[in-house]
Amino acid sequence: MSAPSPTNRSTVLTFSPGDLGTALTRLREAAPLVHCLTNIVVAQWTANVLLAAGASPVMVDNPHEAGSFAAVADGVLVNLGTPYDDTTAAMSHAVTGAAGANTPWVLDPVGAGVLEWRTRIALDLLARSTPAIIRGNASEILALSGGRGGKGVQTVDTPESALRAARETAREHGSVVAVSGAVDHLTDGDRVVRVSNGDVLLTKVTGVGCALGALMAGFCGVVEDPLLAATAATATLTVAAEAAAEASRGPGTFAVALLDELAMLTPQDLVDRVRLS
Amino acid sequence: MSAPSPTNRSTVLTFSPGDLGTALTRLREAAPLVHCLTNIVVAQWTANVLLAAGASPVMVDNPHEAGSFAAVADGVLVNLGTPYDDTTAAMSHAVTGAAGANTPWVLDPVGAGVLEWRTRIALDLLARSTPAIIRGNASEILALSGGRGGKGVQTVDTPESALRAARETAREHGSVVAVSGAVDHLTDGDRVVRVSNGDVLLTKVTGVGCALGALMAGFCGVVEDPLLAATAATATLTVAAEAAAEASRGPGTFAVALLDELAMLTPQDLVDRVRLS
Amino acid sequence: MSAPSPTNRSTVLTFSPGDLGTALTRLREAAPLVHCLTNIVVAQWTANVLLAAGASPVMVDNPHEAGSFAAVADGVLVNLGTPYDDTTAAMSHAVTGAAGANTPWVLDPVGAGVLEWRTRIALDLLARSTPAIIRGNASEILALSGGRGGKGVQTVDTPESALRAARETAREHGSVVAVSGAVDHLTDGDRVVRVSNGDVLLTKVTGVGCALGALMAGFCGVVEDPLLAATAATATLTVAAEAAAEASRGPGTFAVALLDELAMLTPQDLVDRVRLS
Repeated sequence: MSAPSPTNRSTVLTFSPGDLGTALTRLREAAPLVHCLTNIVVAQWTANVLLAAGASPVMVDNPHEAGSFAAVADGVLVNLGTPYDDTTAAMSHAVTGAAGANTPWVLDPVGAGVLEWRTRIALDLLARSTPAIIRGNASEILALSGGRGGKGVQTVDTPESALRAARETAREHGSVVAVSGAVDHLTDGDRVVRVSNGDVLLTKVTGVGCALGALMAGFCGVVEDPLLAATAATATLTVAAEAAAEASRGPGTFAVALLDELAMLTPQDLVDRVRLS
Repeated sequence: MSAPSPTNRSTVLTFSPGDLGTALTRLREAAPLVHCLTNIVVAQWTANVLLAAGASPVMVDNPHEAGSFAAVADGVLVNLGTPYDDTTAAMSHAVTGAAGANTPWVLDPVGAGVLEWRTRIALDLLARSTPAIIRGNASEILALSGGRGGKGVQTVDTPESALRAARETAREHGSVVAVSGAVDHLTDGDRVVRVSNGDVLLTKVTGVGCALGALMAGFCGVVEDPLLAATAATATLTVAAEAAAEASRGPGTFAVALLDELAMLTPQDLVDRVRLS
Repeated sequence: MSAPSPTNRSTVLTFSPGDLGTALTRLREAAPLVHCLTNIVVAQWTANVLLAAGASPVMVDNPHEAGSFAAVADGVLVNLGTPYDDTTAAMSHAVTGAAGANTPWVLDPVGAGVLEWRTRIALDLLARSTPAIIRGNASEILALSGGRGGKGVQTVDTPESALRAARETAREHGSVVAVSGAVDHLTDGDRVVRVSNGDVLLTKVTGVGCALGALMAGFCGVVEDPLLAATAATATLTVAAEAAAEASRGPGTFAVALLDELAMLTPQDLVDRVRLS
């Protein structure tokens, strides 16, 4: 299975800041149940980010319960940060359960490309069911393109090549792909959105990207379009991060302030401050 | 095995705020060793809450060591937040070890009623040994009553029905039952205590209930009466939470302030501010 | 195998505060990749401490990936806080992978001496490969001396006996040994360094010692001498802790401020404030 060639068509902005505000309003009203299968490093942080933003986190990552719970959740996050034999079995069940119930799920292939075992796990999950969104950095995304072998650790050193990899992966798997960076690039293979908010302190706290994936799963539970869900989650987290950075002395106070700002962020703030292109 | 009918006898307040202050003084003096078998989401938070309050947390949740350690601990917490095959084996050993050494243990059946596998685990643990305290929300408590099958997801939508479920479960298992809510209800099946402290921010931070269970295990190590232990733990956490909420901008600063306030709370503060009935 | 008698030769200070400042400069420049196999309680905190100080944490603790990743990391931490069957298999692979690639590794034998199973795991790891540094409290260190059986829970109640145990263990295993306490003692069996910085609040936050072990693994990736690496890590953490304590109301704000202060600490601050002897 070879990936289609990336194209360079001009970017079309398919939704407005107002759509992001509406998505946040819905998240707060519905408090979607986000089923997280994530890693031991960020589990607490992820739950607190979801709670602060307005979603309802539930961590169920054993193989006995993950499949049936994914079927009743509003969104599912599968994050490969610290996989073990039993939790990866749970992930397979969750993905199958989500597929059977049309629950949208998000794949965060942490470390794919660098670490072989989890790269295979990610590809196995993708073969089992199509995620609504795949979220990662450029290297992780690239490791999932080009068929089951992946492309290994090929360098992705410019925003342009990152976007090309994202489009290629989006088309190959039929998912929205969200690539983190100084500017976040999100695409469904056709439409492309760039979000230019954020702060360098986001790179000094562990698990911000992991929590972003969980937030994407939450927004998938309240809006139809996965590209809108991924963009709303990215905008919510990075706009709140800008306010948090202003009130911070360093990474400790920043992480604490980020939770406060997520809770205080209004839909109108999001509309006013997001920088989309 | 059918549960006895709940009664509606009038509530008798069997201890005073002063008893809670004395319990906190003992906790600080003895720094009881609290053996925690808990979940990946709240393990750090739980340890920090115990340390701030004055207890000594030790997390040992593998099947090779949990049984013998439970026998030397002052109290044991078994929390079903993220159970796995090996940690649930450890829980069985811990409960058996605790029973053999008369170490009081606390069961927090997170998700019981909603998730089948852990509901069976909770019932298996209850069949193995009687916990000093069972702590949870009304649905979780109800799932443990009515014999080994539980009652499933029967709705518990009023404080009165929650209390009825708590009394029923307390009598069936011979344990104190503590039900979380805007008002906390605690009962040994006969006596009933209500604690009316707290703040809505407690629902916006993950693991507060889980940490409360651990704190109950700590107080069980320093006072004889499990109802007093459960009440002292509830009062300590919720009185500190009120002070923390005053100094907070949102859930991030609240969680941080809660640890500070737990460390600063004096037994006299507890006596002055607790609202028992 | 019996340990050589400890000697009482006078302490020789083999490096200056300036060497510690240079080590911190190198850590910031190189951002060494620290491969952590640690416990569920402190994983997030450890990653955030490493990020704040300037290192690059990567948590890989499954048996499928730990061996090969240890071979490419700049330093490896093996912490026995919450061992399971699969993570201890990963630890064995990591230690073997580290040995094959000359990656320095740090052993933190949490609970050794008190808990039998993990004491055997620690001794097995030591038999497999020599760590650059062993870090723990006096009882844990003593449990690793005197041959494979250990010495059990022999009391170590004075700084002098702690230092004797540290020297004995350092010589037996050929590793630097770092013993935590009000004053930290570090030795390679011959040279002895004392670091007298810190604050009592360090004992009120879970995982500070665990994070210190990870920081030692980071410094091992940028300086040759493991005694210098262990000392630089100890000084960095405890000097930052003094600044954090000044700005804190209790253990909650202290932990947050510690991350801020680690990020703000300059090499010159370290040189000016460290108390070596």
